[in-house]
Amino acid sequence: MLDWNPALYRRYEDERTRPAQELLARVPLSEADRVVDLGCGPGNSTELLVQRFPKAQVLGTDNSEAMLVSARERLPQASFELSDIATWAPQGQAPDLIYANASLQWVPDHEKLIPRLFDALAPGGVLAIQMPDNRQEPTHRLMRALAAEAPWAEPIGDADRLRTMLLPLGGYYDLLAPHAASVDVWHTIYQHRMADSASIVEWVRSTGLKPFVDRLPADLQASYLAEYQRRVDEAYPARADGRRLLAFPRMFIVAQKSKA
Amino acid sequence: MLDWNPALYRRYEDERTRPAQELLARVPLSEADRVVDLGCGPGNSTELLVQRFPKAQVLGTDNSEAMLVSARERLPQASFELSDIATWAPQGQAPDLIYANASLQWVPDHEKLIPRLFDALAPGGVLAIQMPDNRQEPTHRLMRALAAEAPWAEPIGDADRLRTMLLPLGGYYDLLAPHAASVDVWHTIYQHRMADSASIVEWVRSTGLKPFVDRLPADLQASYLAEYQRRVDEAYPARADGRRLLAFPRMFIVAQKSKA
Repeated sequence: MLDWNPALYRRYEDERTRPAQELLARVPLSEADRVVDLGCGPGNSTELLVQRFPKAQVLGTDNSEAMLVSARERLPQASFELSDIATWAPQGQAPDLIYANASLQWVPDHEKLIPRLFDALAPGGVLAIQMPDNRQEPTHRLMRALAAEAPWAEPIGDADRLRTMLLPLGGYYDLLAPHAASVDVWHTIYQHRMADSASIVEWVRSTGLKPFVDRLPADLQASYLAEYQRRVDEAYPARADGRRLLAFPRMFIVAQKSKA
Repeated sequence: MLDWNPALYRRYEDERTRPAQELLARVPLSEADRVVDLGCGPGNSTELLVQRFPKAQVLGTDNSEAMLVSARERLPQASFELSDIATWAPQGQAPDLIYANASLQWVPDHEKLIPRLFDALAPGGVLAIQMPDNRQEPTHRLMRALAAEAPWAEPIGDADRLRTMLLPLGGYYDLLAPHAASVDVWHTIYQHRMADSASIVEWVRSTGLKPFVDRLPADLQASYLAEYQRRVDEAYPARADGRRLLAFPRMFIVAQKSKA
């Protein structure tokens, strides 16, 4: 699989950083010694963590070396390591904050993963998670529908299965609440203002659409993307000012361990 | 109609103040001379405005004298006036911020109201609105279903019509975007942790349920509330920790005028 493209991912950095900020705003810690950013990407979320906890040791992890190169350049004061969230565990002292912004949707088996991460926290520590919850949005329904049609179906195969099926929000609550001092869960459905349907395709191309397109040879990539954009254009009609509103639901989970 | 009950309304003040804070966090103003809090209630939102804009003249309006008494006591540095949002217009210089947290859902005719409020702003000014969007939640479907049944239907009558039917979020965008420098719209669906079904009833009793219950004589109030709580109890099953999660969708709109 092609590696992630930090430049393309960064193009909508303001829109992508907002949920990271809103997640952090709900973390009930005034200070922290050890902070981990699981799936740090190019370091936009890590930068927020460094600003909020200037005295903390901040570690960012990602499974993309290209993203880590970008993150290290941006934040020399933090440390970064190549690792897979599915098997990651803290080295040395337990962290006060495990923060995972838009990363756990790529990691399977949440019923085991989420309690394991929560257990790894220091007393009073916080697990803070944000995940896109847009499988039922037109962008994602359309990429799957098209991936079931010839001539794209065969090369794309089971690309959709790379992304984990999320639990309902109450399922995450149930996993954490009996063991936590507090659990706060919510959804925000952003409405991103996009110039046109091409911008919507560009947005999803760097994330949700990537596993689909990566599996196609160049000529089929072009035809898949052209037909996908045509359908996206219909599904997101122009608003009164000519722009498109891209509804983007995201799920947030903030759980704190008891202090004792 | 009975007046609002500031003590009951305040019981869930933390949960009610969070959306007010999140709305204010998205207001793109570093300073303001004149700020208006439309439908200020007991002043919790007004207090946030005073903190954010300490040099501004802050005016709170409400149509409940009981709420204004409570607000004046809390915030002697702000001014408060009894008025109806439907006919309210700024006196003197145009405001830099018109802020309406959980109030416009009681005011009719949004197609005219919202553009009128936006027009009343100074150049560069911001209109910031938050409204509960929970008509389709079990709490609200159940209060309507029960209000259609004997013996409550006749005295309750058209109580449901007191609350304005909201436009879809894109409708508000369309009203504002052609005339604005920027418009940001989104939903957040909070999941409030409630001890039991009685707490859920208590929550809605001070707001959405109030027009229904107010129209009933005492004995019918008791039977309506008992049956309502029974149905709420079924609709919000206990989670793994015994609590109930009250899903509470809220709509947010932030529009800025151009500076010239």
